Amino acid sequence: MVVTVVGLGLIGGSLAISLKENGFAKTIIGVDHNPENIDKAFRRRLLDKTMDLEAGICNADLVIVAIPVDNMVSLLPKILDHVTDQVVIDVGSTKEKILDAVADHPQRNRFVGTHPMAGTEHSGPEAAIPNLFDGKACVLSEVEKSDPAAVALVEKMYRTMDMKLVNMHPKDHDVHAAYVSHISHLSAFALALTVLEKEKNEARIFELAGGGFSSTVRLAKSTPNMWVPIFAQNQENLLDVLDEHINTLAQFRTCLIKKDFTQIYELIEKANSIRKILK
Amino acid sequence: MVVTVVGLGLIGGSLAISLKENGFAKTIIGVDHNPENIDKAFRRRLLDKTMDLEAGICNADLVIVAIPVDNMVSLLPKILDHVTDQVVIDVGSTKEKILDAVADHPQRNRFVGTHPMAGTEHSGPEAAIPNLFDGKACVLSEVEKSDPAAVALVEKMYRTMDMKLVNMHPKDHDVHAAYVSHISHLSAFALALTVLEKEKNEARIFELAGGGFSSTVRLAKSTPNMWVPIFAQNQENLLDVLDEHINTLAQFRTCLIKKDFTQIYELIEKANSIRKILK
Repeated sequence: MVVTVVGLGLIGGSLAISLKENGFAKTIIGVDHNPENIDKAFRRRLLDKTMDLEAGICNADLVIVAIPVDNMVSLLPKILDHVTDQVVIDVGSTKEKILDAVADHPQRNRFVGTHPMAGTEHSGPEAAIPNLFDGKACVLSEVEKSDPAAVALVEKMYRTMDMKLVNMHPKDHDVHAAYVSHISHLSAFALALTVLEKEKNEARIFELAGGGFSSTVRLAKSTPNMWVPIFAQNQENLLDVLDEHINTLAQFRTCLIKKDFTQIYELIEKANSIRKILK
Repeated sequence: MVVTVVGLGLIGGSLAISLKENGFAKTIIGVDHNPENIDKAFRRRLLDKTMDLEAGICNADLVIVAIPVDNMVSLLPKILDHVTDQVVIDVGSTKEKILDAVADHPQRNRFVGTHPMAGTEHSGPEAAIPNLFDGKACVLSEVEKSDPAAVALVEKMYRTMDMKLVNMHPKDHDVHAAYVSHISHLSAFALALTVLEKEKNEARIFELAGGGFSSTVRLAKSTPNMWVPIFAQNQENLLDVLDEHINTLAQFRTCLIKKDFTQIYELIEKANSIRKILK
Protein backbone atom coordinates (compact mmCIF):
# COMPACT_ATOMS: atom_id res chain seq x y z
CA MET A 1 0.00 0.00 0.00
CA VAL A 2 1.38 3.40 -1.01
CA VAL A 3 0.20 6.14 1.36
CA THR A 4 0.65 9.80 0.49
CA VAL A 5 0.57 12.17 3.45
CA VAL A 6 -0.25 15.77 2.53
CA GLY A 7 0.93 18.01 5.37
CA LEU A 8 3.87 16.71 7.39
CA GLY A 9 2.97 18.19 10.78
CA LEU A 10 2.18 16.60 14.14
CA ILE A 11 -0.77 14.56 12.84
CA GLY A 12 0.46 13.75 9.33
CA GLY A 13 3.94 12.94 10.60
CA SER A 14 2.68 10.76 13.45
CA LEU A 15 0.39 8.84 11.06
CA ALA A 16 3.38 8.36 8.74
CA ILE A 17 5.40 6.85 11.60
CA SER A 18 2.64 4.49 12.79
CA LEU A 19 1.47 3.29 9.37
CA LYS A 20 5.01 2.53 8.23
CA GLU A 21 5.89 0.87 11.52
CA ASN A 22 2.86 -1.42 11.61
CA GLY A 23 3.27 -2.37 7.96
CA PHE A 24 0.00 -0.88 6.68
CA ALA A 25 2.04 1.39 4.39
CA LYS A 26 4.84 -0.10 2.34
CA THR A 27 5.78 3.35 1.08
CA ILE A 28 5.09 6.80 2.51
CA ILE A 29 5.12 9.68 0.02
CA GLY A 30 5.31 13.04 1.77
CA VAL A 31 3.84 16.22 0.28
CA ASP A 32 4.21 19.65 1.87
CA HIS A 33 4.18 23.14 0.36
CA ASN A 34 6.91 24.12 2.81
CA PRO A 35 10.35 22.80 1.73
CA GLU A 36 11.63 23.22 5.27
CA ASN A 37 9.01 20.75 6.52
CA ILE A 38 10.03 18.25 3.83
CA ASP A 39 13.62 18.63 4.92
CA LYS A 40 12.80 18.16 8.61
CA ALA A 41 10.56 15.21 7.77
CA PHE A 42 13.38 13.50 5.85
CA ARG A 43 15.74 14.03 8.76
CA ARG A 44 13.13 12.55 11.14
CA ARG A 45 12.74 9.63 8.62
CA LEU A 46 9.00 10.22 8.40
CA LEU A 47 8.79 9.49 4.67
CA ASP A 48 10.31 7.38 1.90
CA LYS A 49 10.06 10.00 -0.83
CA THR A 50 8.57 13.35 -1.67
CA MET A 51 6.62 14.49 -4.74
CA ASP A 52 4.53 17.45 -5.75
CA LEU A 53 0.84 17.23 -4.89
CA GLU A 54 -0.38 15.91 -8.22
CA ALA A 55 2.28 13.19 -8.50
CA GLY A 56 1.74 12.31 -4.83
CA ILE A 57 -1.94 11.68 -5.53
CA CYS A 58 -1.42 9.75 -8.79
CA ASN A 59 1.15 7.41 -7.20
CA ALA A 60 -0.87 6.67 -4.06
CA ASP A 61 -3.43 4.08 -3.04
CA LEU A 62 -4.49 6.23 -0.09
CA VAL A 63 -4.09 10.00 0.36
CA ILE A 64 -4.21 11.39 3.92
CA VAL A 65 -4.74 15.15 4.07
CA ALA A 66 -3.47 16.57 7.36
CA ILE A 67 -3.42 20.37 7.00
CA PRO A 68 -5.14 23.22 8.88
CA VAL A 69 -8.92 23.06 8.38
CA ASP A 70 -9.12 26.31 6.39
CA ASN A 71 -6.66 25.01 3.81
CA MET A 72 -8.50 21.70 3.88
CA VAL A 73 -11.66 23.33 2.58
CA SER A 74 -9.85 24.89 -0.37
CA LEU A 75 -7.46 22.03 -1.17
CA LEU A 76 -9.65 18.92 -0.85
CA PRO A 77 -11.76 19.62 -4.00
CA LYS A 78 -8.53 20.16 -5.97
CA ILE A 79 -7.13 16.89 -4.66
CA LEU A 80 -10.31 15.04 -5.64
CA ASP A 81 -9.97 16.56 -9.16
CA HIS A 82 -6.85 14.39 -9.62
CA VAL A 83 -8.30 11.23 -8.11
CA THR A 84 -9.10 8.17 -10.20
CA ASP A 85 -9.37 5.15 -7.89
CA GLN A 86 -7.41 6.45 -4.89
CA VAL A 87 -9.05 6.85 -1.50
CA VAL A 88 -8.72 10.31 0.08
CA ILE A 89 -9.27 11.10 3.75
CA ASP A 90 -9.04 14.24 5.83
CA VAL A 91 -8.11 14.21 9.52
CA GLY A 92 -9.49 17.66 10.37
CA SER A 93 -10.85 18.76 13.76
CA THR A 94 -14.10 20.04 12.24
CA LYS A 95 -16.38 18.01 10.02
CA GLU A 96 -19.33 20.06 8.77
CA LYS A 97 -17.47 22.71 6.76
CA ILE A 98 -15.00 20.15 5.40
CA LEU A 99 -17.68 17.74 4.26
CA ASP A 100 -19.66 20.63 2.77
CA ALA A 101 -16.60 21.55 0.70
CA VAL A 102 -16.59 18.19 -1.09
CA ALA A 103 -20.32 17.44 -0.96
CA ASP A 104 -20.98 17.97 -4.67
CA HIS A 105 -17.66 16.80 -6.04
CA PRO A 106 -18.01 14.10 -8.74
CA GLN A 107 -15.42 12.03 -6.86
CA ARG A 108 -17.15 12.45 -3.48
CA ASN A 109 -17.42 8.69 -3.05
CA ARG A 110 -13.61 8.32 -3.09
CA PHE A 111 -13.47 10.57 -0.02
CA VAL A 112 -13.92 9.59 3.65
CA GLY A 113 -14.24 12.27 6.32
CA THR A 114 -12.41 11.34 9.54
CA HIS A 115 -11.16 12.86 12.76
CA PRO A 116 -8.68 10.83 14.78
CA MET A 117 -9.05 12.43 18.25
CA ALA A 118 -5.42 12.70 19.24
CA GLY A 119 -2.82 15.40 19.42
CA THR A 120 -0.39 17.28 21.59
CA GLU A 121 0.29 20.97 22.14
CA HIS A 122 3.26 20.77 19.74
CA SER A 123 3.30 21.15 15.97
CA GLY A 124 5.41 20.56 12.89
CA PRO A 125 7.32 17.47 11.66
CA GLU A 126 9.52 17.65 14.78
CA ALA A 127 6.40 17.08 16.92
CA ALA A 128 5.53 13.77 15.21
CA ILE A 129 5.62 10.84 17.66
CA PRO A 130 5.00 7.09 17.55
CA ASN A 131 1.84 5.62 19.12
CA LEU A 132 0.02 8.98 19.21
CA PHE A 133 -3.22 7.35 18.08
CA ASP A 134 -3.11 4.05 20.01
CA GLY A 135 -6.44 3.32 21.65
CA LYS A 136 -7.91 6.79 20.99
CA ALA A 137 -11.31 7.53 19.42
CA CYS A 138 -11.64 8.26 15.71
CA VAL A 139 -14.79 9.75 14.19
CA LEU A 140 -15.94 8.76 10.71
CA SER A 141 -18.53 11.13 9.31
CA GLU A 142 -21.07 10.79 6.49
CA VAL A 143 -19.69 7.40 5.46
CA GLU A 144 -22.94 6.76 3.60
CA LYS A 145 -21.68 9.15 0.91
CA SER A 146 -18.42 7.22 0.51
CA ASP A 147 -17.78 4.04 -1.45
CA PRO A 148 -18.10 1.10 1.01
CA ALA A 149 -14.73 -0.32 -0.09
CA ALA A 150 -13.11 3.06 0.57
CA VAL A 151 -14.67 3.15 4.05
CA ALA A 152 -13.51 -0.42 4.70
CA LEU A 153 -9.93 0.51 3.77
CA VAL A 154 -9.97 3.54 6.08
CA GLU A 155 -11.46 1.52 8.95
CA LYS A 156 -8.78 -1.12 8.42
CA MET A 157 -6.11 1.58 8.53
CA TYR A 158 -7.32 3.10 11.81
CA ARG A 159 -7.74 -0.36 13.35
CA THR A 160 -4.04 -1.08 12.75
CA MET A 161 -3.50 1.64 15.39
CA ASP A 162 -6.19 0.20 17.72
CA MET A 163 -8.37 3.26 17.27
CA LYS A 164 -11.98 3.10 18.49
CA LEU A 165 -14.15 3.96 15.48
CA VAL A 166 -17.24 6.10 16.05
CA ASN A 167 -19.73 7.03 13.32
CA MET A 168 -21.14 10.49 13.84
CA HIS A 169 -23.09 13.08 11.89
CA PRO A 170 -20.85 16.07 11.02
CA LYS A 171 -23.09 18.46 13.01
CA ASP A 172 -22.97 16.17 16.08
CA HIS A 173 -19.23 15.77 15.74
CA ASP A 174 -18.74 19.52 15.73
CA VAL A 175 -20.92 20.02 18.83
CA HIS A 176 -19.13 17.24 20.70
CA ALA A 177 -15.68 18.43 19.61
CA ALA A 178 -16.54 21.93 20.88
CA TYR A 179 -17.28 20.40 24.31
CA VAL A 180 -14.47 17.91 24.71
CA SER A 181 -11.69 19.60 22.76
CA HIS A 182 -12.17 23.14 21.48
CA ILE A 183 -13.33 24.69 24.78
CA SER A 184 -10.40 23.04 26.62
CA HIS A 185 -8.04 24.84 24.29
CA LEU A 186 -9.85 28.16 24.55
CA SER A 187 -9.91 27.86 28.35
CA ALA A 188 -6.17 27.10 28.44
CA PHE A 189 -5.39 30.08 26.17
CA ALA A 190 -7.46 32.35 28.44
CA LEU A 191 -5.90 31.01 31.64
CA ALA A 192 -2.40 31.51 30.26
CA LEU A 193 -3.26 35.09 29.25
CA THR A 194 -4.75 35.82 32.68
CA VAL A 195 -1.61 34.72 34.48
CA LEU A 196 0.81 36.23 31.93
CA GLU A 197 -0.98 39.57 32.33
CA LYS A 198 -0.41 39.44 36.10
CA GLU A 199 3.27 38.63 35.50
CA LYS A 200 3.77 42.16 34.17
CA ASN A 201 3.54 43.46 37.73
CA GLU A 202 4.53 40.34 39.65
CA ALA A 203 7.77 39.06 38.19
CA ARG A 204 7.89 36.12 40.60
CA ILE A 205 4.44 34.78 39.72
CA PHE A 206 5.73 31.68 37.94
CA GLU A 207 8.21 30.72 40.65
CA LEU A 208 5.47 28.64 42.23
CA ALA A 209 3.83 27.23 39.11
CA GLY A 210 3.65 23.47 39.58
CA GLY A 211 2.11 20.38 38.09
CA GLY A 212 -1.51 21.46 38.42
CA PHE A 213 -0.88 24.70 36.56
CA SER A 214 1.13 22.97 33.81
CA SER A 215 -1.56 20.40 33.27
CA THR A 216 -4.39 22.93 33.03
CA VAL A 217 -2.48 25.36 30.83
CA ARG A 218 -0.43 22.93 28.71
CA LEU A 219 -2.74 23.31 25.70
CA ALA A 220 -2.06 27.07 25.64
CA LYS A 221 1.18 26.24 23.82
CA SER A 222 -0.85 25.14 20.78
CA THR A 223 -0.30 27.04 17.55
CA PRO A 224 -2.83 29.62 16.31
CA ASN A 225 -2.19 28.37 12.75
CA MET A 226 -4.09 25.23 13.60
CA TRP A 227 -6.57 26.59 16.15
CA VAL A 228 -7.82 29.85 14.64
CA PRO A 229 -9.24 28.03 11.59
CA ILE A 230 -10.88 25.44 13.88
CA PHE A 231 -12.45 28.19 16.02
CA ALA A 232 -13.58 29.96 12.83
CA GLN A 233 -15.20 26.86 11.34
CA ASN A 234 -16.82 25.83 14.63
CA GLN A 235 -17.63 29.37 15.74
CA GLU A 236 -21.31 28.83 16.57
CA ASN A 237 -20.89 25.68 18.66
CA LEU A 238 -17.83 27.06 20.40
CA LEU A 239 -19.71 30.23 21.28
CA ASP A 240 -22.52 28.17 22.84
CA VAL A 241 -20.11 26.18 24.97
CA LEU A 242 -18.14 29.27 25.91
CA ASP A 243 -21.34 30.97 27.08
CA GLU A 244 -22.18 27.97 29.23
CA HIS A 245 -18.65 27.84 30.62
CA ILE A 246 -18.69 31.55 31.49
CA ASN A 247 -22.06 31.00 33.19
CA THR A 248 -20.64 28.17 35.28
CA LEU A 249 -17.68 30.34 36.29
CA ALA A 250 -20.13 33.13 37.14
CA GLN A 251 -21.96 30.70 39.45
CA PHE A 252 -18.71 30.13 41.35
CA ARG A 253 -18.15 33.90 41.34
CA THR A 254 -21.56 34.58 42.91
CA CYS A 255 -20.93 31.92 45.56
CA LEU A 256 -17.51 33.40 46.35
CA ILE A 257 -18.97 36.91 46.68
CA LYS A 258 -21.76 35.62 48.94
CA LYS A 259 -19.29 33.35 50.77
CA ASP A 260 -21.72 30.54 50.10
CA PHE A 261 -19.20 27.73 50.56
CA THR A 262 -21.91 25.10 51.04
CA GLN A 263 -22.97 25.72 47.46
CA ILE A 264 -19.33 25.64 46.28
CA TYR A 265 -18.94 22.29 48.06
CA GLU A 266 -21.95 20.95 46.14
CA LEU A 267 -20.63 22.27 42.82
CA ILE A 268 -17.24 20.63 43.39
CA GLU A 269 -18.89 17.35 44.41
CA LYS A 270 -20.86 17.42 41.16
CA ALA A 271 -17.70 18.22 39.19
CA ASN A 272 -16.02 15.23 40.86
CA SER A 273 -18.28 12.89 38.93
CA ILE A 274 -15.96 13.56 35.98
CA ARG A 275 -14.02 10.70 37.64
CA LYS A 276 -16.36 8.26 35.94
CA ILE A 277 -15.07 9.59 32.58
CA LEU A 278 -11.41 10.31 33.25
CA LYS A 279 -9.66 7.21 34.47
CA MET B 1 15.17 12.26 63.91
CA VAL B 2 11.60 11.38 64.92
CA VAL B 3 9.02 12.97 62.64
CA THR B 4 5.35 13.05 63.55
CA VAL B 5 2.96 13.51 60.63
CA VAL B 6 -0.46 14.83 61.62
CA GLY B 7 -2.89 14.02 58.80
CA LEU B 8 -2.06 10.95 56.73
CA GLY B 9 -3.44 12.09 53.38
CA LEU B 10 -1.80 12.70 50.01
CA ILE B 11 0.66 15.30 51.30
CA GLY B 12 1.34 13.91 54.78
CA GLY B 13 1.63 10.37 53.46
CA SER B 14 3.93 11.36 50.59
CA LEU B 15 6.19 13.30 52.97
CA ALA B 16 6.27 10.24 55.26
CA ILE B 17 7.42 8.08 52.35
CA SER B 18 10.14 10.49 51.15
CA LEU B 19 11.56 11.42 54.56
CA LYS B 20 11.81 7.78 55.67
CA GLU B 21 13.27 6.71 52.32
CA ASN B 22 15.97 9.39 52.24
CA GLY B 23 16.91 8.80 55.88
CA PHE B 24 15.94 12.24 57.21
CA ALA B 25 13.42 10.52 59.51
CA LYS B 26 14.51 7.50 61.50
CA THR B 27 10.99 7.04 62.81
CA ILE B 28 7.66 8.25 61.45
CA ILE B 29 4.84 8.60 63.97
CA GLY B 30 1.45 8.93 62.29
CA VAL B 31 -1.47 10.82 63.84
CA ASP B 32 -4.93 10.97 62.28
CA HIS B 33 -8.35 11.48 63.84
CA ASN B 34 -9.76 8.96 61.38
CA PRO B 35 -8.92 5.34 62.41
CA GLU B 36 -9.58 4.18 58.85
CA ASN B 37 -6.77 6.44 57.61
CA ILE B 38 -4.41 5.03 60.25
CA ASP B 39 -5.32 1.54 59.13
CA LYS B 40 -4.79 2.36 55.43
CA ALA B 41 -1.53 4.13 56.25
CA PHE B 42 -0.22 1.06 58.11
CA ARG B 43 -1.14 -1.17 55.19
CA ARG B 44 0.68 1.24 52.82
CA ARG B 45 3.64 1.17 55.29
CA LEU B 46 3.62 4.95 55.57
CA LEU B 47 4.41 5.01 59.31
CA ASP B 48 6.32 3.16 62.00
CA LYS B 49 3.82 3.74 64.79
CA THR B 50 0.72 5.70 65.69
CA MET B 51 -0.08 7.75 68.79
CA ASP B 52 -2.69 10.24 69.88
CA LEU B 53 -1.95 13.87 69.05
CA GLU B 54 -0.41 14.83 72.39
CA ALA B 55 1.90 11.81 72.58
CA GLY B 56 2.79 12.27 68.90
CA ILE B 57 3.96 15.81 69.65
CA CYS B 58 5.85 14.97 72.86
CA ASN B 59 7.76 12.12 71.21
CA ALA B 60 8.74 14.04 68.07
CA ASP B 61 11.67 16.22 67.02
CA LEU B 62 9.64 17.61 64.14
CA VAL B 63 5.84 17.75 63.74
CA ILE B 64 4.42 18.11 60.21
CA VAL B 65 0.77 19.20 60.13
CA ALA B 66 -0.87 18.17 56.86
CA ILE B 67 -4.61 18.66 57.27
CA PRO B 68 -7.21 20.82 55.45
CA VAL B 69 -6.51 24.53 55.98
CA ASP B 70 -9.67 25.17 58.02
CA ASN B 71 -8.70 22.51 60.56
CA MET B 72 -5.16 23.86 60.46
CA VAL B 73 -6.30 27.21 61.82
CA SER B 74 -8.06 25.61 64.80
CA LEU B 75 -5.56 22.81 65.50
CA LEU B 76 -2.18 24.55 65.18
CA PRO B 77 -2.52 26.68 68.36
CA LYS B 78 -3.49 23.54 70.31
CA ILE B 79 -0.47 21.71 68.92
CA LEU B 80 1.82 24.58 69.90
CA ASP B 81 0.33 24.42 73.44
CA HIS B 82 2.04 21.01 73.82
CA VAL B 83 5.36 22.02 72.30
CA THR B 84 8.54 22.30 74.35
CA ASP B 85 11.53 22.19 71.97
CA GLN B 86 9.91 20.46 68.97
CA VAL B 87 9.71 22.19 65.61
CA VAL B 88 6.21 22.37 64.08
CA ILE B 89 5.44 23.10 60.42
CA ASP B 90 2.29 23.36 58.40
CA VAL B 91 2.12 22.47 54.70
CA GLY B 92 -1.11 24.33 53.90
CA SER B 93 -2.06 25.90 50.56
CA THR B 94 -2.83 29.27 52.14
CA LYS B 95 -0.48 31.21 54.36
CA GLU B 96 -2.05 34.41 55.67
CA LYS B 97 -4.92 32.92 57.71
CA ILE B 98 -2.73 30.09 58.99
CA LEU B 99 0.08 32.39 60.13
CA ASP B 100 -2.49 34.75 61.69
CA ALA B 101 -3.80 31.82 63.74
CA VAL B 102 -0.45 31.30 65.48
CA ALA B 103 0.84 34.90 65.38
CA ASP B 104 0.44 35.57 69.09
CA HIS B 105 1.15 32.09 70.40
CA PRO B 106 3.92 32.02 73.08
CA GLN B 107 5.57 29.18 71.13
CA ARG B 108 5.36 31.00 67.77
CA ASN B 109 9.11 30.74 67.29
CA ARG B 110 8.93 26.90 67.27
CA PHE B 111 6.64 27.12 64.24
CA VAL B 112 7.62 27.48 60.57
CA GLY B 113 4.95 28.20 57.93
CA THR B 114 5.57 26.31 54.67
CA HIS B 115 3.85 25.34 51.47
CA PRO B 116 5.46 22.61 49.38
CA MET B 117 3.89 23.25 45.95
CA ALA B 118 3.09 19.72 44.91
CA GLY B 119 0.04 17.53 44.73
CA THR B 120 -2.19 15.43 42.58
CA GLU B 121 -5.95 15.29 42.07
CA HIS B 122 -6.16 12.29 44.43
CA SER B 123 -6.48 12.27 48.22
CA GLY B 124 -6.17 10.05 51.28
CA PRO B 125 -3.37 7.71 52.44
CA GLU B 126 -3.89 5.60 49.31
CA ALA B 127 -2.91 8.63 47.18
CA ALA B 128 0.52 8.99 48.84
CA ILE B 129 3.35 8.51 46.34
CA PRO B 130 7.16 8.59 46.42
CA ASN B 131 9.04 11.50 44.85
CA LEU B 132 5.99 13.81 44.84
CA PHE B 133 8.10 16.76 45.98
CA ASP B 134 11.30 16.21 44.01
CA GLY B 135 12.50 19.43 42.40
CA LYS B 136 9.28 21.35 43.11
CA ALA B 137 9.05 24.81 44.73
CA CYS B 138 8.43 25.19 48.46
CA VAL B 139 7.42 28.50 50.04
CA LEU B 140 8.62 29.45 53.52
CA SER B 141 6.68 32.34 54.98
CA GLU B 142 7.42 34.77 57.84
CA VAL B 143 10.58 32.90 58.79
CA GLU B 144 11.72 36.02 60.69
CA LYS B 145 9.20 35.05 63.38
CA SER B 146 10.66 31.56 63.73
CA ASP B 147 13.73 30.43 65.61
CA PRO B 148 16.67 30.36 63.12
CA ALA B 149 17.60 26.81 64.15
CA ALA B 150 14.01 25.68 63.50
CA VAL B 151 14.09 27.30 60.05
CA ALA B 152 17.44 25.65 59.33
CA LEU B 153 16.02 22.23 60.23
CA VAL B 154 13.00 22.73 57.98
CA GLU B 155 15.17 23.95 55.11
CA LYS B 156 17.40 20.91 55.55
CA MET B 157 14.35 18.65 55.47
CA TYR B 158 12.97 20.13 52.22
CA ARG B 159 16.43 20.06 50.64
CA THR B 160 16.60 16.28 51.19
CA MET B 161 13.82 16.19 48.58
CA ASP B 162 15.57 18.66 46.26
CA MET B 163 12.87 21.26 46.76
CA LYS B 164 13.54 24.83 45.60
CA LEU B 165 13.04 27.05 48.64
CA VAL B 166 11.37 30.42 48.16
CA ASN B 167 10.84 32.98 50.92
CA MET B 168 7.61 34.88 50.49
CA HIS B 169 5.36 37.16 52.50
CA PRO B 170 2.09 35.37 53.36
CA LYS B 171 0.02 37.95 51.43
CA ASP B 172 2.23 37.55 48.34
CA HIS B 173 2.08 33.77 48.63
CA ASP B 174 -1.71 33.83 48.69
CA VAL B 175 -1.92 36.12 45.63
CA HIS B 176 0.55 33.97 43.70
CA ALA B 177 -1.11 30.70 44.76
CA ALA B 178 -4.47 32.08 43.55
CA TYR B 179 -2.91 32.64 40.10
CA VAL B 180 -0.86 29.49 39.64
CA SER B 181 -2.90 26.95 41.58
CA HIS B 182 -6.32 27.92 42.92
CA ILE B 183 -7.73 29.35 39.65
CA SER B 184 -6.55 26.23 37.75
CA HIS B 185 -8.64 24.12 40.09
CA LEU B 186 -11.66 26.40 39.89
CA SER B 187 -11.41 26.46 36.08
CA ALA B 188 -11.19 22.65 35.94
CA PHE B 189 -14.23 22.27 38.23
CA ALA B 190 -16.20 24.67 36.03
CA LEU B 191 -15.14 22.98 32.80
CA ALA B 192 -16.12 19.57 34.15
CA LEU B 193 -19.53 20.92 35.21
CA THR B 194 -20.08 22.55 31.80
CA VAL B 195 -19.47 19.30 29.95
CA LEU B 196 -21.28 17.10 32.49
CA GLU B 197 -24.33 19.35 32.16
CA LYS B 198 -24.32 18.82 28.39
CA GLU B 199 -24.05 15.06 28.92
CA LYS B 200 -27.60 15.02 30.30
CA ASN B 201 -28.89 15.51 26.76
CA GLU B 202 -25.99 14.12 24.78
CA ALA B 203 -25.16 10.71 26.19
CA ARG B 204 -22.30 10.22 23.73
CA ILE B 205 -20.47 13.45 24.62
CA PHE B 206 -17.56 11.69 26.34
CA GLU B 207 -17.00 9.15 23.60
CA LEU B 208 -14.56 11.58 22.02
CA ALA B 209 -12.88 12.94 25.15
CA GLY B 210 -9.15 12.59 24.63
CA GLY B 211 -5.85 13.64 26.09
CA GLY B 212 -6.41 17.39 25.81
CA PHE B 213 -9.67 17.19 27.71
CA SER B 214 -8.21 14.93 30.41
CA SER B 215 -5.28 17.21 30.94
CA THR B 216 -7.39 20.37 31.25
CA VAL B 217 -10.04 18.78 33.47
CA ARG B 218 -7.90 16.37 35.55
CA LEU B 219 -7.89 18.68 38.58
CA ALA B 220 -11.72 18.54 38.69
CA LYS B 221 -11.33 15.19 40.45
CA SER B 222 -9.90 17.00 43.50
CA THR B 223 -11.83 16.67 46.76
CA PRO B 224 -14.01 19.53 48.09
CA ASN B 225 -12.81 18.67 51.61
CA MET B 226 -9.45 20.12 50.72
CA TRP B 227 -10.47 22.80 48.23
CA VAL B 228 -13.49 24.49 49.82
CA PRO B 229 -11.43 25.60 52.87
CA ILE B 230 -8.68 26.88 50.54
CA PHE B 231 -11.20 28.84 48.45
CA ALA B 232 -12.74 30.18 51.69
CA GLN B 233 -9.42 31.32 53.14
CA ASN B 234 -8.22 32.81 49.87
CA GLN B 235 -11.61 34.15 48.81
CA GLU B 236 -10.56 37.72 48.01
CA ASN B 237 -7.54 36.87 45.89
CA LEU B 238 -9.36 34.07 44.12
CA LEU B 239 -12.25 36.39 43.32
CA ASP B 240 -9.83 38.92 41.76
CA VAL B 241 -8.22 36.26 39.57
CA LEU B 242 -11.58 34.77 38.65
CA ASP B 243 -12.83 38.21 37.56
CA GLU B 244 -9.76 38.63 35.36
CA HIS B 245 -10.17 35.14 33.92
CA ILE B 246 -13.84 35.72 33.11
CA ASN B 247 -12.84 39.02 31.45
CA THR B 248 -10.28 37.23 29.31
CA LEU B 249 -12.85 34.63 28.28
CA ALA B 250 -15.28 37.47 27.51
CA GLN B 251 -12.64 38.97 25.18
CA PHE B 252 -12.57 35.69 23.24
CA ARG B 253 -16.37 35.68 23.30
CA THR B 254 -16.57 39.17 21.79
CA CYS B 255 -14.08 38.21 19.09
CA LEU B 256 -16.04 35.06 18.27
CA ILE B 257 -19.29 37.00 18.01
CA LYS B 258 -17.65 39.60 15.78
CA LYS B 259 -15.79 36.88 13.89
CA ASP B 260 -12.64 38.86 14.55
CA PHE B 261 -10.22 35.99 14.00
CA THR B 262 -7.25 38.29 13.52
CA GLN B 263 -7.68 39.38 17.13
CA ILE B 264 -8.10 35.74 18.26
CA TYR B 265 -4.86 34.90 16.42
CA GLU B 266 -3.09 37.65 18.35
CA LEU B 267 -4.53 36.49 21.68
CA ILE B 268 -3.40 32.92 21.04
CA GLU B 269 0.07 34.09 19.98
CA LYS B 270 0.32 36.00 23.26
CA ALA B 271 -0.89 32.96 25.21
CA ASN B 272 1.81 30.90 23.47
CA SER B 273 4.47 32.79 25.41
CA ILE B 274 3.50 30.52 28.32
CA ARG B 275 6.03 28.23 26.58
CA LYS B 276 8.79 30.17 28.29
CA ILE B 277 7.35 29.01 31.64
CA LEU B 278 6.11 25.50 30.93
CA LYS B 279 8.89 23.31 29.66
